[in-house]
Amino acid sequence: MTVVYTKEDLKAELLKLNKNIGFVPTMGYLHNGHKSLIEKSKSENEYTVVSIFVNPAQFLPNEDLDKYPRNKEGDIKFCEDLGVDILFMPKDVYFDYEPKVIAPKELASILEGATRPGHFDGVLTVLNKFFNLVKPKNAYFGKKDTQQLMVINNMIKSFFMNINIVPCEIIREEDGLALSSRNSYLDEEQRVMALKIFRSLTKAKNMIENGELDSNLIQKEMRGILEPLKIDYIEFVDKEFNKIDKIKLGESIILIAVYVGPTRLIDNIWI
Amino acid sequence: MTVVYTKEDLKAELLKLNKNIGFVPTMGYLHNGHKSLIEKSKSENEYTVVSIFVNPAQFLPNEDLDKYPRNKEGDIKFCEDLGVDILFMPKDVYFDYEPKVIAPKELASILEGATRPGHFDGVLTVLNKFFNLVKPKNAYFGKKDTQQLMVINNMIKSFFMNINIVPCEIIREEDGLALSSRNSYLDEEQRVMALKIFRSLTKAKNMIENGELDSNLIQKEMRGILEPLKIDYIEFVDKEFNKIDKIKLGESIILIAVYVGPTRLIDNIWI
Repeated sequence: MTVVYTKEDLKAELLKLNKNIGFVPTMGYLHNGHKSLIEKSKSENEYTVVSIFVNPAQFLPNEDLDKYPRNKEGDIKFCEDLGVDILFMPKDVYFDYEPKVIAPKELASILEGATRPGHFDGVLTVLNKFFNLVKPKNAYFGKKDTQQLMVINNMIKSFFMNINIVPCEIIREEDGLALSSRNSYLDEEQRVMALKIFRSLTKAKNMIENGELDSNLIQKEMRGILEPLKIDYIEFVDKEFNKIDKIKLGESIILIAVYVGPTRLIDNIWI
Repeated sequence: MTVVYTKEDLKAELLKLNKNIGFVPTMGYLHNGHKSLIEKSKSENEYTVVSIFVNPAQFLPNEDLDKYPRNKEGDIKFCEDLGVDILFMPKDVYFDYEPKVIAPKELASILEGATRPGHFDGVLTVLNKFFNLVKPKNAYFGKKDTQQLMVINNMIKSFFMNINIVPCEIIREEDGLALSSRNSYLDEEQRVMALKIFRSLTKAKNMIENGELDSNLIQKEMRGILEPLKIDYIEFVDKEFNKIDKIKLGESIILIAVYVGPTRLIDNIWI
């Protein structure tokens, strides 16, 4: 595995490869969720490039940019062990002044974007850079950030980019907690409380399997399970992120964002 | 020459080519200024792609989008005669909702951007699409839109695009008027008045050649020549578009925007 720290070095390395690059952009502190993305990329592409960059542009001023967990040496070993071809760890990718990519409000001002205005602009601004640099055939993202997937797909289409975005299943702990680098913020008690998230989603799934399709009734049950956690949102949407009152099997997503102590966690389930 | 009207057809045609594509994006109503860009592209690349698209996103609501001159059949013949390989004339390139590229205010809120807020956002948004689609090695732009050149170069650098932007000299009528599709708006009397623009720039050049480097003194003379035209701006900048009080030979640009009747014309000279 080659580790590179500048875009010039990355370009030089990429020149040695041919096409069929799979790309896994990450913010590091790699866990088994990332592992599943990397393994999928390895299985579908000749080369796999992983980037690790804690992107300041996608954090709001009051968010956890500074304390976001980092594990440089561990991440390098993690990628090495998985057979990653190129690991790109740039120090910075921004200039004094430069154009911004602004996500469309129709997708980016709701849900995550309502609580984190500007977040998706930062995501798209950095991914646009990385996509242009790496020129992947396929790029891998977890379904945990489902809204991010929609916003990225919209950019790919609108910018006429020739990249296939591959959504990957959420990886969970044995007890159901969706893997997230932010889980490291949780203390023992909060870790137990966080299980309510998956439990509420499982309850929703069970209700739907038993024929209940009314989102308001399902949401009421979920809110009961989640108590006393502070709920940011529970939302039922179709695949285009339009809100729905009635579940349609195979076309619906239930999204959830809650605070466990000061830590904000998200999760979702595709129905 | 192949004429294509959709991005799908363009992609199919591009697949038949190899690398070394020269690209000349235009808004049509082609004149000898465009001719010089196309000829330069032809001389420097294996293939030349020209696009014609009157881009709504770079016009302000009160501007001349609807009456902007169009000449579809003439433009096709013009490109055919010059040996253009592919002429791309899309009907539309926008979606219901999509990300926007926002030019940095440091470059885009001054001069043209002050009078035409949002103009450069529209320019970058469409060029980003076209660059991704055509994947040119070289792209050709006239120096008449000098600020546009700076804004585009900033995007190329910031977006990690692998495209060489080639600035091309301003082409003028025999009497000095810089070629522009908007010259077609001028009546006979206005056409005569418009000559004051180049005359004022020539005066500035002569003063500088005679040792006068004070931009305020030069500007005063220029304003005298331009009377009674309504001046939008006369500005002296360095190559990074910082304002300067004192001309530095080889590093300065004098920019001018004036109204001739209702028609706004721009011109500039690199010193």
